[in-house]
Amino acid sequence: MTRPIKVVQYGVGPIGSAIVNLLSAKQGIKIVGAIDIDKEKVGKDLGDVAGAPRPLGVFVSNDADEVLAKAKAEVVLHSTGSYLNVVSPQILKCVKAGSNVISTCEELAYPFETNQKIALQLDRLAKRYGVTVLGTGVNPGFIMDTLPIALTGACQSVTQVSVTRIVDASRRRLQLQRKIGAGLSPEEFQRLVQERKVRHVGLEESIRMIASALGWKLDRVEETVEPVIAEVDVESQFLKVENGRVAGVKQFGRGVVRGREAITLDLQICVGAKEPGDSVVIEGVPPIDVTIKGGLHGDLATAAIVVNSIPKVLKAEPGLLTMKDLPVLSAIP
Amino acid sequence: MTRPIKVVQYGVGPIGSAIVNLLSAKQGIKIVGAIDIDKEKVGKDLGDVAGAPRPLGVFVSNDADEVLAKAKAEVVLHSTGSYLNVVSPQILKCVKAGSNVISTCEELAYPFETNQKIALQLDRLAKRYGVTVLGTGVNPGFIMDTLPIALTGACQSVTQVSVTRIVDASRRRLQLQRKIGAGLSPEEFQRLVQERKVRHVGLEESIRMIASALGWKLDRVEETVEPVIAEVDVESQFLKVENGRVAGVKQFGRGVVRGREAITLDLQICVGAKEPGDSVVIEGVPPIDVTIKGGLHGDLATAAIVVNSIPKVLKAEPGLLTMKDLPVLSAIP
Repeated sequence: MTRPIKVVQYGVGPIGSAIVNLLSAKQGIKIVGAIDIDKEKVGKDLGDVAGAPRPLGVFVSNDADEVLAKAKAEVVLHSTGSYLNVVSPQILKCVKAGSNVISTCEELAYPFETNQKIALQLDRLAKRYGVTVLGTGVNPGFIMDTLPIALTGACQSVTQVSVTRIVDASRRRLQLQRKIGAGLSPEEFQRLVQERKVRHVGLEESIRMIASALGWKLDRVEETVEPVIAEVDVESQFLKVENGRVAGVKQFGRGVVRGREAITLDLQICVGAKEPGDSVVIEGVPPIDVTIKGGLHGDLATAAIVVNSIPKVLKAEPGLLTMKDLPVLSAIP
Repeated sequence: MTRPIKVVQYGVGPIGSAIVNLLSAKQGIKIVGAIDIDKEKVGKDLGDVAGAPRPLGVFVSNDADEVLAKAKAEVVLHSTGSYLNVVSPQILKCVKAGSNVISTCEELAYPFETNQKIALQLDRLAKRYGVTVLGTGVNPGFIMDTLPIALTGACQSVTQVSVTRIVDASRRRLQLQRKIGAGLSPEEFQRLVQERKVRHVGLEESIRMIASALGWKLDRVEETVEPVIAEVDVESQFLKVENGRVAGVKQFGRGVVRGREAITLDLQICVGAKEPGDSVVIEGVPPIDVTIKGGLHGDLATAAIVVNSIPKVLKAEPGLLTMKDLPVLSAIP
């Protein structure tokens, strides 16, 4: 019998809860601590907070330092926010406690150019403490970066990488529906876009990860955020969008190389999207045109990717790594 | 300026030639030797033999020992045959010369169960000499193993992996058309199948690689080889298949886990295949249904995968590795 891997869950929101549920179904993993600042959750059993079928005998604490010091976890699964300048102090705590970190922080997926200073600091400290830090998830982390990169591995040369992802947010969590502005008026939407409160985070990171993998030097990265306006009344489990109001977001990212749109990422997330699906088109020799029917389910896949990363991160060299540095993930038993 | 990577090409048949052509278009790579036993090729310039646009200043030799000793190559690209018991002495020579090896030998893609003794010997010797040995290509090596494995990385759990690949051999090399029995009578086909001269090699290796990645214990692997009979006259660049004769091969592999067909690989390669394409279906949470429109071009992709493996193999730990052990490949500039 091998000793189980000790894991701490940092952040028990919707994604953290999905991770906890998955962890509790996996062999060889022991959850030894849980951190969250929400007063409604602190002191409660992690299983109850995460909606697991049974209590887990681990209680949610708001004292990260104490949990991390006591747990001596091999790996902390971190899921508290999208912005690296906000969450990096939390990640640094984990590193200093000697734990590897796998985080769903979108800006951590490929932070070397967008958050250079924090990236360098994380890398340096991770190496000093002999641990690995990884940012991952379904997007960024898989569908718009790692998967297209992996497909280019079968190409003699590549001239363009284009990814389209259309997500029907009706099936997704309320938090995501809010993030995409569902239910807002077009004016409210524009204001929240200006305040960067409505948008998908990570498109630029995906573009920069692809460019780096292909050895391309980017002139610039451009990004636009537009509303998808409902043309009929549409409804999700959580909210209703009336005809003429915002059903979601249409976000477009372009990586320009030598004046040419070499990388284009087209993301639409809206309540009631008619033809959800993912597609990756590589222009190259040979060309590759891939379709994922119906699209990959975001919340399920993000929890899966985080948990499936654990054995690879434990074997990886110390430092701040990205998905393109790790061996191919696979579903762990 | 970084020093170019020194490469030897071992085997200058159709695949070896495709590799040489691609190598000569890549930055940072220098071909320093070429080995082939074909009297028509020995002594000639590698560029001429491989059909490159210009001579390469490297002459094909049939003296492997001499070439390997003189070249001191960082990596040997090996492409001489499908069967490991036939080609392993060649690979061992490369290892003993201190070179990493990337081979298109199909049985090397995942040899730990099908050629256990040779696999152990290669692994032990590679570690002793501090080099890495990898078997790869489009199939086995990518479309029916590494790609489905990578897709399961987004799954919380997996119950079945099914891959279908339909290849129109009209666009492929004559050697491949012969390997699939194109033009034979059904009786000749059956005889050559019995002699194992007509078949795709590597299906079992792909099944075993997937099972290993998913931590599945296989009860057994089954394989059937059947002819595809032409229903009209069909023609390729090289040969003509009359109505009623064999257009190609339909090969089906099943990996049985706890009495259930958990892995199914369905491969059809024939001249005039009507709907070429690749599909990967993962039954799991979430399910994933991927289609590659028109299918991935085999000869182009195999050369690409071999060459794109070079930087990963140079960085990898010593020993006999497989594609699931390496970081995600990407097209090198």
